[in-house]
Formats: sequence, structure tokens, C-alpha cells
Amino acid sequence: MTSIASRADDGRVTRIAATMADGREIIYFDETPDAVRVLTDPRDIPSVIPGSHVRYDVLLGEWVGIAGHRQTRTYHPPADACPLCPSTARNQSEIPSPDYDVVVFENRFPSFAGAGEIASDGTLFDTRPGYGRCEVVCFTSNHHATLSSLPPSRMRTVIDAWADRTAAMSASPGVEQVFCFENRGVEIGVTLAHPHGQIYGYPFVTPKTAAAIRSAQAHRAATGSNLFAAVLAGELADGSRIVAENEHWVALVPFAARWPVEVHLYPRRQVRDLTALEGVERAALAELYLEVIKRMEGMFDDTLPAITGVHQAPVHAADEDFRLHLEVFTIRRDVGKLKFLAGSESAMGAFVNDITPEIAAERLRAVDTGTERVAK
Amino acid sequence: MTSIASRADDGRVTRIAATMADGREIIYFDETPDAVRVLTDPRDIPSVIPGSHVRYDVLLGEWVGIAGHRQTRTYHPPADACPLCPSTARNQSEIPSPDYDVVVFENRFPSFAGAGEIASDGTLFDTRPGYGRCEVVCFTSNHHATLSSLPPSRMRTVIDAWADRTAAMSASPGVEQVFCFENRGVEIGVTLAHPHGQIYGYPFVTPKTAAAIRSAQAHRAATGSNLFAAVLAGELADGSRIVAENEHWVALVPFAARWPVEVHLYPRRQVRDLTALEGVERAALAELYLEVIKRMEGMFDDTLPAITGVHQAPVHAADEDFRLHLEVFTIRRDVGKLKFLAGSESAMGAFVNDITPEIAAERLRAVDTGTERVAK
Repeated sequence: MTSIASRADDGRVTRIAATMADGREIIYFDETPDAVRVLTDPRDIPSVIPGSHVRYDVLLGEWVGIAGHRQTRTYHPPADACPLCPSTARNQSEIPSPDYDVVVFENRFPSFAGAGEIASDGTLFDTRPGYGRCEVVCFTSNHHATLSSLPPSRMRTVIDAWADRTAAMSASPGVEQVFCFENRGVEIGVTLAHPHGQIYGYPFVTPKTAAAIRSAQAHRAATGSNLFAAVLAGELADGSRIVAENEHWVALVPFAARWPVEVHLYPRRQVRDLTALEGVERAALAELYLEVIKRMEGMFDDTLPAITGVHQAPVHAADEDFRLHLEVFTIRRDVGKLKFLAGSESAMGAFVNDITPEIAAERLRAVDTGTERVAK
Repeated sequence: MTSIASRADDGRVTRIAATMADGREIIYFDETPDAVRVLTDPRDIPSVIPGSHVRYDVLLGEWVGIAGHRQTRTYHPPADACPLCPSTARNQSEIPSPDYDVVVFENRFPSFAGAGEIASDGTLFDTRPGYGRCEVVCFTSNHHATLSSLPPSRMRTVIDAWADRTAAMSASPGVEQVFCFENRGVEIGVTLAHPHGQIYGYPFVTPKTAAAIRSAQAHRAATGSNLFAAVLAGELADGSRIVAENEHWVALVPFAARWPVEVHLYPRRQVRDLTALEGVERAALAELYLEVIKRMEGMFDDTLPAITGVHQAPVHAADEDFRLHLEVFTIRRDVGKLKFLAGSESAMGAFVNDITPEIAAERLRAVDTGTERVAK
């Protein structure tokens, strides 16, 4: 059992790392310096042997993960057996401690695991080990909380944890891109109700990021300028799709939004990933992100099944034009109605959005987020 | 009221076109030469003014459709008010006739409509009219049938209708790609239970097809050969992912399958779209496609929410390497469990498949499709 406690650079978070019963790593990010955490995992659980690999689709030019061992993963456990709650006498969960602020641990059923250098086999049927890392991030020990009910200081701690993990995974051999994300809502397949997100360290550059880098490179070749900066400047000049902004960040509905309600959060300066953000920028992101979520929650008198993704530059990207940003979208298109990805979207990648982006932005701006928002 | 009756080239289908009450086109494809169809639509229905447009996402290099008028589209009507059943005294449906074999009509709530030449506005925020066409294809007048219960002769008529519409839409100014597809199952958002598919005439080349063409061009530049032919030859040589085949077609689970059960059907010769298929090839496709669907239905003791897409070369593609093929996949990953597109897939385009392609192929081959399959 190894444990390492350390204070983050700016002293606001205490970081305590330990090892779980089956050898996985768990890391507490605590807002109070004197938090006492149980570092011994008393369970007798067998190790899951990750059998994943990745295959290259030569027709679409994309990597696909194949992870046959994940079919047995935990599926809608009852609330009193939640694996993400702090442990109690009755429920020995993934987190041995009786409480935590933010905790990160390796996923027991990872899509990617292990580390090493990998090389192409040079054929049309290229298979590689599924190296990489998958982690779970619990945002609060309160099973029934929602992210938007948490104070900005907690969101800031989540961002600190994301940045910590981005730095750590980026240093792991074989990891090409780190992706922090949150799925929420049974409507999009979430099987654990406890407020949490995930972090993937992929052994390849994801298709969306690869596409954006291609576009940015073409734009720089044609104009000599940064495509992300040009788009953000255009959005700010137009204004019709801006949802909210502060000194360091801008939240907007993108011009060609694919989802009924979709908001992107961009830093005003060129930053490649979370690790490059200053403390004030992290704090400003926490504030604006919670405001965006509350505005999205306020648009429909219904649940908000949603996905938040933190888009970061690939670990080894020579291209420095890619700009860190968050993308948040919901599949809710109306009260009682969801946007499904059917033939056009799933088979052809051609999205048809039922809500005009400017109308979505107007409705988001009109949401009364109340005064609770600034309570800390 | 205009109506035109004609026999298809090979004489097996009678084609009768008419105009609906609000000006939309309806076309019957009948297997019996003496079918009598009601060509007058007695309803008094207002025209839906399609207000769609398309926007270019400069970051991902993809077009997105914006169709705000579709929010009011028909949503889970009761079976006795099905708009796709033949009309009765109690239910004046979209189809005035008391019966039909296969019928195609323009979607009342189209994602794309109208025709015309379109040009880029040259900015980072490029908007164009949503020209194109969206049609509905009813496979049978029997509301409670499934596609797999239909005889191969009916599937052949559907293929004939697809080819007819591909030719017609390809001749329409502004249409860049024709996509015939079927969504099935409430699990993927199908709001009309009647067995039917759709056809989209897009005003752009879809992202998936554009990616495949990029790959094929790169492969030809590097090797001088056709990428699709090379992949098919490799799959046939390996054999582990072949599901079924006949003289003209091969059905296989692709090497880098994204979905739990995914089958692609390739013609053995280089064909760019459905219009180039010979009659025997269409008949062979009908047989093999129905067999594939039955095998997929037999894999899980549960419903089969699925999408079938007919991938055709773009209308104006200079590249002749793109090969017509069908892709069929289900979001069913186990009994009672679905594959959801969550953060990794929806936000990053990075698929993680829970079922190894070779295992899926083996299980599909093992399904007993019974003797009913060859009954006509």
C-alpha cells in the first residue's frame, strides 16, 4: 500500500494517492488540508484483466477500441450499493474513506489500460494493444447532488483534478490524448447515478480532434492565422450566439450546432490544455461552466441528459493552433422528447438540428439562474 | 393532379406517380401490373413550409442541417391513425389508396427541400439554403409486419424503388448525395411503427462518405489500387469476419466494427451506386440482406433496434473508387442492454465496441435462420 500526500502548487487542494485492493490507483483531491482519508481498501476483489485493443478503420481513417471484457461492468446498482459513495459498514464501495471532496480512481472496467510504445503493423488490418487509462472522477460524496448544485469552489477542485490527471496521463507512454468528460442522465446510458465524470487517456488522437486539427492546419496554410481565434473573434463580433462571458472565458452556441442545445466554452487566450490554465482562469471557468449548466437546466421543464467534454490538444501535437475548450450538449429537444442519433447522424455523420442556434442562445440567455448561483 | 404510370425497364414493377393534396409527390411501386391506385388525395391539409438551411462547421469541416420547422412533426400516433397505412374511411393517411406494395412519398416535415444551385459565401460562417429532398418509403401496407418477414421479391421491389429515387434525386440541382436508410425500433427514436425507411437527398457530401473518399484517394495515390477492393479481398482471404455470401454479394463484420453487431454488405464488383446494379445483383442483394437481418434478429432474445444505411458515391464525385455498400448495425449489445453513444463516441467520435468483431461474426453465422427464409 503506497500513499503519497501532497499539496497542489497553489495550496488550495490536498492531494492524497493510495492503492486499491486490486492494485488500481485512487487519488483524493481535498479542499481542507486536514482531511483524514482511509488509505487501506479492505475488500477482497479480483483484478479485472483488461483485454482491450484498438483497430484502425482504413476506410474512415479512424481508430476504434475493442473491449470485450466490459460486458460484465456494473449496471444500475441500487442506491445503497453505490460503488461511488463513501464506504459505510454496509457498503464497501470503491472509495474506502467515510467522506471525500473530489476523488479520482482507475476504472475497474477500463476501455484502455496499460502503457507502452506502439507501432503500426503496416497492413490494412492494423491492431494495437489498447494502452491508455480510464479513470472515474467523483464530484461529491453526496449521492443525490447534481453538479450544478455544487459551489464554484468545488467545480474549481474538479478542474484542478482534471488538470492533474491530464498532466499525469500525458506523461504515460502510449497516451496520445486526454479527454475529461461527464455523461449525465439515464437517457444517454449512464448506469451509475452518483455525480461523476470520467477521464480517458486514449492511445490515439480522437477523430473529432483530428478533424479540427486538419481544419486548423488548412486555415493557417491559407491565411497564416489561428482558426480557433478567428472563429471566436467572429462569434464575439456577431454576438447573436453568445450565452455568457467573463474576463477569461466565453460561452456560446456554435454557429453550426449539431445538438438541440449545445454550448461551447472558450478561453479568451490561446491555451492548448487544462494544465496551461492559470488559477484565475480555472476559477473563472468554474463560475461560467456552472452558469451554463444552470441555464441549460432551465430551458426545459424536464431532465437534462447531457454530455460535457473537455477538448484538449493531443499530447504530442506539433500543431499549436488547437485551443482548449469545453463542449456541453443535451439530447433533450423538447419536454418529453429527445434527439436520437438515427440514420443520418449515426450512419452518415450528417446532423440535422431542430433548434436554430440563435434561438437556443436567446432562450439560454433568458433563463433566470437565480441568486443562488453566486452563493459559495 | 398529375399522374404518370410506367413500367420499369425489366418489367417487374409498375411505377405510378401522383400528387398529394399539398403538392408533394407520391410514387407507387407495384409488383402486379394491374394494381389500381387512388390518385386523388381527398384531404385538406396545409403545406408545411420547409425553413431549413445548412451551415458549415469550419472547425470539423462538416455541414450541419438546421431545420427548426420539424419540431411539430408527427410523434407516436396510435396504430389506427397511422399516416403510413393505406387510407380507410376512418383514417385518411398519407397514402390515398386502399392498398399498396411499396410506396414512396415526400416527407411532410423534410430536413431538406427545394432545388437550386448553391455557392459558398466565402466566410467562416457559411450558410446555404437547405436544398434537397426527403422521402418516406413504405415497405408494406401491413402495419404489423417486419422487413425480415417480407419475401425477397418485396425486398427486391424496395431496392428497385431505392434505385429509382437515387436516379431521380441525383438529377435534382443541389443534391450532392442520395442516402437510403431504415431506422427501426423505438429505442433509436423511431416515431412511426409502420415498416418504412427514408431517403435523403443531401445538399452536401456527408462526413462519413467524405472521409472514405479521402482514404480511398490517399490509398490510390500510395498504391495505385482501389481501397475498397483491397479491404474486401483481405476480408475474403481472412474469412473470420465473413457472415454470409452469394454470387454477387459478401456480408461481413468489418475489421474495426464500431457497433455491437455491425454487418456490411459489399458487391463483388466495383459499383458506385444502386442505379448501376444489374437485375441479378439486385435480386441477390435482396436475398442476402434479408438473411443478414434474420441473423441479427436471432442473436439476442430481444428486440433489434437497428439502422440500415445504403452508402452510395456522391452524385458529382470525380473519384470512382467509392464502392456502393450497405451498412447494418444494432445498438443492442445484450439482452436488455443497449449501446449508447455517450462522451467518447458522441463528443470525440471515438467508439469503444463491447463485442469483438470475430465473435460477432461467429455468432451471426451460428444463427439458425430456418427454412422460412427461402419461402416466397
